[in-house]
Amino acid sequence: MEIRVETGGRTFPVSVTMRTPGHDFELAAGFLYTEGVIRGRKAIERISYCTAGREPQNQNIVTVHLRPNVPFDPLRLSRHVYTTSSCGICGKASLEQVRATCPPPLTGKPQLPEGFFLALPEVMQRQQTIFARTGGLHAAALFDTAGNLVVLREDVGRHNAMDKLVGTLLLDDRLPASESVVLMSGRASFELVQKALMAGIPILAAVSAPSSLAIDLAREFGMTLVGFLRDGRFNIYAGE
Amino acid sequence: MEIRVETGGRTFPVSVTMRTPGHDFELAAGFLYTEGVIRGRKAIERISYCTAGREPQNQNIVTVHLRPNVPFDPLRLSRHVYTTSSCGICGKASLEQVRATCPPPLTGKPQLPEGFFLALPEVMQRQQTIFARTGGLHAAALFDTAGNLVVLREDVGRHNAMDKLVGTLLLDDRLPASESVVLMSGRASFELVQKALMAGIPILAAVSAPSSLAIDLAREFGMTLVGFLRDGRFNIYAGE
Repeated sequence: MEIRVETGGRTFPVSVTMRTPGHDFELAAGFLYTEGVIRGRKAIERISYCTAGREPQNQNIVTVHLRPNVPFDPLRLSRHVYTTSSCGICGKASLEQVRATCPPPLTGKPQLPEGFFLALPEVMQRQQTIFARTGGLHAAALFDTAGNLVVLREDVGRHNAMDKLVGTLLLDDRLPASESVVLMSGRASFELVQKALMAGIPILAAVSAPSSLAIDLAREFGMTLVGFLRDGRFNIYAGE
Repeated sequence: MEIRVETGGRTFPVSVTMRTPGHDFELAAGFLYTEGVIRGRKAIERISYCTAGREPQNQNIVTVHLRPNVPFDPLRLSRHVYTTSSCGICGKASLEQVRATCPPPLTGKPQLPEGFFLALPEVMQRQQTIFARTGGLHAAALFDTAGNLVVLREDVGRHNAMDKLVGTLLLDDRLPASESVVLMSGRASFELVQKALMAGIPILAAVSAPSSLAIDLAREFGMTLVGFLRDGRFNIYAGE
């Protein structure tokens, strides 16, 4: 799916992502938000599928139309295209660039007991309906501090699943999600930590391993980072 | 790690990848080859770490120096940056673009019995030394048709692991690897199929699920695609 931004009558390509169809507008909005291209829901006038020419609308091209006077820098954008990231690819080669985009370090994190975390994977798995059928999709699940599942999004890419989740919260005007925990089905990458920070989510848990850069970033921004949350155990890598 | 290409005295940035250090030159060479930027080992004069200015060499920047008169199109390159892909991100939105880069469909594939495949995962796992310590790395393993492990490469990203493997074969002048099978530790993405095709590898097996686009591409190019190769069973999605 190609994500485009339209502003002042001009349209700019931002990114192309290999995604699982569904929640496409949330994906587009979430991507622009977590990558720092837009600063909030108010930046968005509307979101649409491509309807260029006389062809039927193309659901693999989503355009986010910005409100008038929302700042938008195509040059900065081209860097964003370049730095668009997934588990193997990232242009944010240093933490410096993230510092420029991220909000201030987290404060006032919820304190949660061990049992809270141990219960999460099973709740998530019950809701991974596409994974149950295919065995091939990642999931990002947001929980409140009582352990209730708030939003779950699935996608072939972990970063897309997170962007769909954050985009859902953004469009529902529920950001920052400071009283919540996000659980990822796979590993915790640098980019997932960064995206969660952008959404104000103070605790990120992952079913598998974190990367060393993910740990560095979580520590620097005061996030709690949990890994290997499965089989009745977990490790805490930051913010214990 | 940033990959750069130097040709005719000018240097061009190509891609930045979040990689696990090790086999960096193989990664750079393999990436350029599987993405169609270079056509063979002879295109490469030498590969070096960055030694700009008086600073010590920067092992996060690798420059591939092309031989004189090797064709290189920076404009095409900028599209490559844009389309650089990992499990969530890809610019090759259509199979059309891959057709332009890929070699002709495979012919003369080896015929291998069921037991050949069932034996591979354990052999691979015994050699995944960094995974054994961290639980956080992917692997790409090349086997000959007798089931012997030829090369194994690990990386935090699946696509990097594949590029390191293909780069190793390229620099050793062992491409195309037409009498071999590659096993991936995770899912089989569209990009992994494409990269294996570029290396002439006729059979790709994955421990986890293939994507639908990966299956489409494998079928179109005559590759055998095996998925969910674990726990004594597997599925064949293409080229049975």
